[in-house]
Amino acid sequence: MNQQRIECVLKKMEGEGLSQLLVTDPLSIWYLTGSMIHPGERMLALLLKSDGNHRFFVNALFPAPDCGIPVVRYSDTDDGPAFIAKELDPKQPVGIDKNWPSRFLIRLMELSAASGFVNGSGCVDWVRAVKDADEQEKMRKSSLVNDACMEEFKNALHVGATEKELEEKFVSIYAAHGCSDVSFTPIVGFSANAADPHHENDGTKLEKGMCVLIDVGGVYDGYCSDMTRTFFTAPPTEEQETVYNLVRKANETAEALVRPGVKLCDIDRAAREVIEKAGYGEYFYHRLGHFIGLEDHEYGDVSSAFDRPVEEGMCFSIEPGIYLEGKFGVRIEDLVIVTKDGCEVLNHYPKELTVLSL
Amino acid sequence: MNQQRIECVLKKMEGEGLSQLLVTDPLSIWYLTGSMIHPGERMLALLLKSDGNHRFFVNALFPAPDCGIPVVRYSDTDDGPAFIAKELDPKQPVGIDKNWPSRFLIRLMELSAASGFVNGSGCVDWVRAVKDADEQEKMRKSSLVNDACMEEFKNALHVGATEKELEEKFVSIYAAHGCSDVSFTPIVGFSANAADPHHENDGTKLEKGMCVLIDVGGVYDGYCSDMTRTFFTAPPTEEQETVYNLVRKANETAEALVRPGVKLCDIDRAAREVIEKAGYGEYFYHRLGHFIGLEDHEYGDVSSAFDRPVEEGMCFSIEPGIYLEGKFGVRIEDLVIVTKDGCEVLNHYPKELTVLSL
Repeated sequence: MNQQRIECVLKKMEGEGLSQLLVTDPLSIWYLTGSMIHPGERMLALLLKSDGNHRFFVNALFPAPDCGIPVVRYSDTDDGPAFIAKELDPKQPVGIDKNWPSRFLIRLMELSAASGFVNGSGCVDWVRAVKDADEQEKMRKSSLVNDACMEEFKNALHVGATEKELEEKFVSIYAAHGCSDVSFTPIVGFSANAADPHHENDGTKLEKGMCVLIDVGGVYDGYCSDMTRTFFTAPPTEEQETVYNLVRKANETAEALVRPGVKLCDIDRAAREVIEKAGYGEYFYHRLGHFIGLEDHEYGDVSSAFDRPVEEGMCFSIEPGIYLEGKFGVRIEDLVIVTKDGCEVLNHYPKELTVLSL
Repeated sequence: MNQQRIECVLKKMEGEGLSQLLVTDPLSIWYLTGSMIHPGERMLALLLKSDGNHRFFVNALFPAPDCGIPVVRYSDTDDGPAFIAKELDPKQPVGIDKNWPSRFLIRLMELSAASGFVNGSGCVDWVRAVKDADEQEKMRKSSLVNDACMEEFKNALHVGATEKELEEKFVSIYAAHGCSDVSFTPIVGFSANAADPHHENDGTKLEKGMCVLIDVGGVYDGYCSDMTRTFFTAPPTEEQETVYNLVRKANETAEALVRPGVKLCDIDRAAREVIEKAGYGEYFYHRLGHFIGLEDHEYGDVSSAFDRPVEEGMCFSIEPGIYLEGKFGVRIEDLVIVTKDGCEVLNHYPKELTVLSL
């Protein structure tokens, strides 16, 4: 049990007027208790209460965690949520984890287990969003590994290689660098495929002249990296050069703006304005960034939907892109950690426009 | 769009008194529409309505599916559930997918988008549970591949190999057999580790005399296999032999009972009684089986919690086990498809007590 982190969550609960909160994300539970359980489709829940009467609901199939919080066991044939209902105050609202499968929530509602059911994830997510010193060090190391891997990825590019082959190669390179996993399936997009931000790697073969977008990350010591670079394999056209430099300028403008107190939406706005003013606004149609840590996509976006001010220790991506359908796409992404008066960019891999000779 | 499958779902909805249902499981959406979208944390929903005014809600980041159902697009900064609310009848209840992340459901409730929110997954899940002829053929092939892989796994066992190394080896064997993925991380448990049904493979080294539990499956042509066999590496003790034969008898007793009309709970009971009567009841503490198909664990258990009668075409596992903590564990698992008057066992790998000479 990490008492300090739990105290932070209890404080957030107080701020939200919540006396009871169900934490059900396995990584959040690990973050707070030190117990990692992969429940599959089974119910797993950590009930935090403002009076300190926390409870940990764990299916009897899994070993009982020993983290200082009383464990409530139930079996596959039990009505799991009924065990939770017994520990809830039905006259108070309960905070629910944003990703808890609806079937459990619906069952709690059938049991009238609380006076209201609200999304309480922020109480944990905004604590996880601020990395402590140990976590910052791990994020730093993970991105250093990613820098080194990117260099190997660049060198692995060759005429005739398919996106799918490169994906597999990249996965093995992360393993060779000591990563336990990839943060997500590596994205390798050639030319028109690079113009689809959610392209699934396919059998397209690399030809001289194509642009190559590589969006990748590995999990090192439990923490995720995530970086995007876009390379050219022939001198870029005028349009390609314009687009590349715009995306880079948007990326650097946003990074220069990050410091405690600045709103997430304003960082997004600043990057977007760079691109809009050049007339490419409609081709940058996703958020500027996302929070990251134990998971590649943690709660919180750098977008117009989040007006929360940035705090020291927060860690997120800055990844503007311009996607010209059927032609090519450019994205440049770094991770940053917010410092006392600015930010530390965790990726050191060059962002200069690079033409590879394949 | 698979009109026939959608008709089956609409019929189930009628039986449940539902005029509107939100299908949000990406595989269920694929099953009904032919469109496979991996939404990550983004909202994805197929609204089925009894009046035929279906709608497909897809984030603008993904290519628009072309499946004959009108697509509603929203962006990352939109309030996604508000788009769904506009298409719902607020005077009628809506069926919710069992695994839909709670944040979307809570938002729909805030918007008073329906008169009630119920778990509507059964309307899709019980259709998916009954495999059509094409799916049955795929399940059959997938298990044949699993039989062949098990033989290679057995031959890969050697003194000094760790569970973790074997896991990796098994994954590559599935790939070599044309599987797109494993159904789940292969479970390889030696002796005492085999007595923990959810053991995570570790650095334990195989020694002569240990028992070896192998629970594995691959995804072949989109359909999952899943089989468990337990081997000995020295002549078994009397207790080991007793336990092995009991588990095998429980497995075969259950398989002999499967036919249309028999209740799932009664199949579980029959297997459990075999083990209970021999005094080992407390050491078999999980469900007898689970449904399987596009996913390894689909909705529906062979357990006391499900009194639904078996139907022709259903496909599930039969996997009794006995786990003697700190000593050893035995589990024997096959998949079966329910036929007109019995069942077809999809696994042909022998179940005789086998002593390997390492």
